[in-house]
Amino acid sequence: MNATEKTLQTRTSLRRYADRPISEEERLSILSAAMAAPTAGNMMLYSIIEITDQAVKESLVETCDGQSFIAKAPLVLLFLADQQRWHDFFVHGGVPKMCDEHGLTWREPEESDLMLGCCDALIAAQNSVIAAESLGIGSCYIGDIMENYERHRDIFELPRWTFPIALVCYGHYPDGERPPRRGRLPMEIVVHRDVYRKADEKVFDIMEDHRRLWSITKIGAPAENGAQKMYLRKNGAPFSFEMSRSVKAAISRWLGEEPKDHD
Amino acid sequence: MNATEKTLQTRTSLRRYADRPISEEERLSILSAAMAAPTAGNMMLYSIIEITDQAVKESLVETCDGQSFIAKAPLVLLFLADQQRWHDFFVHGGVPKMCDEHGLTWREPEESDLMLGCCDALIAAQNSVIAAESLGIGSCYIGDIMENYERHRDIFELPRWTFPIALVCYGHYPDGERPPRRGRLPMEIVVHRDVYRKADEKVFDIMEDHRRLWSITKIGAPAENGAQKMYLRKNGAPFSFEMSRSVKAAISRWLGEEPKDHD
Repeated sequence: MNATEKTLQTRTSLRRYADRPISEEERLSILSAAMAAPTAGNMMLYSIIEITDQAVKESLVETCDGQSFIAKAPLVLLFLADQQRWHDFFVHGGVPKMCDEHGLTWREPEESDLMLGCCDALIAAQNSVIAAESLGIGSCYIGDIMENYERHRDIFELPRWTFPIALVCYGHYPDGERPPRRGRLPMEIVVHRDVYRKADEKVFDIMEDHRRLWSITKIGAPAENGAQKMYLRKNGAPFSFEMSRSVKAAISRWLGEEPKDHD
Repeated sequence: MNATEKTLQTRTSLRRYADRPISEEERLSILSAAMAAPTAGNMMLYSIIEITDQAVKESLVETCDGQSFIAKAPLVLLFLADQQRWHDFFVHGGVPKMCDEHGLTWREPEESDLMLGCCDALIAAQNSVIAAESLGIGSCYIGDIMENYERHRDIFELPRWTFPIALVCYGHYPDGERPPRRGRLPMEIVVHRDVYRKADEKVFDIMEDHRRLWSITKIGAPAENGAQKMYLRKNGAPFSFEMSRSVKAAISRWLGEEPKDHD
């Protein structure tokens, strides 16, 4: 294994950071790695908001399902899918008028543009995470940033065609301490050949057997097995209902379906 | 710069590959790197389809906006957001019955779950791209895989709660040949501090000045500036209209709004 492969294989989500700031040089390395990431048509359909305001970090603990370590992370970056910059550039450059004069359709950002922006944002985020790891800086993704859309929109002054797809916390590993690396499902379950192979009894047995992957050591009522416990803890948990509501609200606004009281 | 940072900084999209297969060892390194990627709740909400069938690779040239190099790539991986595996596991484990008996809501995958699955899939994809690069294997993302949803669904037998978010081609760099690295917008445009800063005249001027980033050497009618040219080439081009239609169709099916003739 080369150094990069080792970096990819040894990284694990870090939620407790050394009490040591990230230097300006390290910060720039992390951001430069993000900026070097592949992007659709080289358009950079994303933005990064660096969160330096401690009060905002503390609000995020609350809006992101109580993950208290966010407030203690020396570097916190919010990755946005961003079609606003190009939309505004098009408008500024007179594209709607050009379309009008030449019988062309003026297409504003739709669902597909949201997805493309998310691609760019996430690919950039992962580059930053890997650069950080290579510098001895751990990181943790916070998917909960997709909850409470309206509050995040207000806090970060997000315009219509941006979408907060990932929050990432970064900090040095506490000296001599590294969380144990969690296992993964076997490759034959995740990697398919030529066509999608639906999970069968054998896969379900493996998933049930691999409960430790999800830290399920014992089953508690009303759950009677690993599937039920994971549902209660994840897809059926209050944060998932909130994320569902919030993402619907964000997409509605993106598509211009929002009630009038929101700009 | 350490070796990993160099790998991140020197990678560029590769669309012409050496006439040399990817070894089994290299293939496993690439897939293992994907599998090691961070994933929400360690649930691995993605699947990878390795496309080995030459006829399918050739179909993809057509369905992905005529990118002929897809057919010549020694390794082609399709990354899917995948909530199907967990959904089926939940059903198999009797979650709907448990919900019913305990007055809980049985929540099937929604938009938020699609987004979470896309996060996992893209983070895994980028890990694989970086591992490949560290082995001297170039790669190229094909966002056009989001077009022609119905055809891709049929080719890959995609069940309802999967979404093809990224296709990646991999192959060795042709000997002694490396495409020049394309520049990026300046960091101050992409990175914001604490709040989103909308692009202004100054940003638009920089974007117009940076036309070479998007290989705009001259402007052709009806475009009169870089913004208009990029709109015609990207957001207003036929492939973008197709992607818009296709993603709407995929999301409709995900949400169960599909017409009856599709399973």
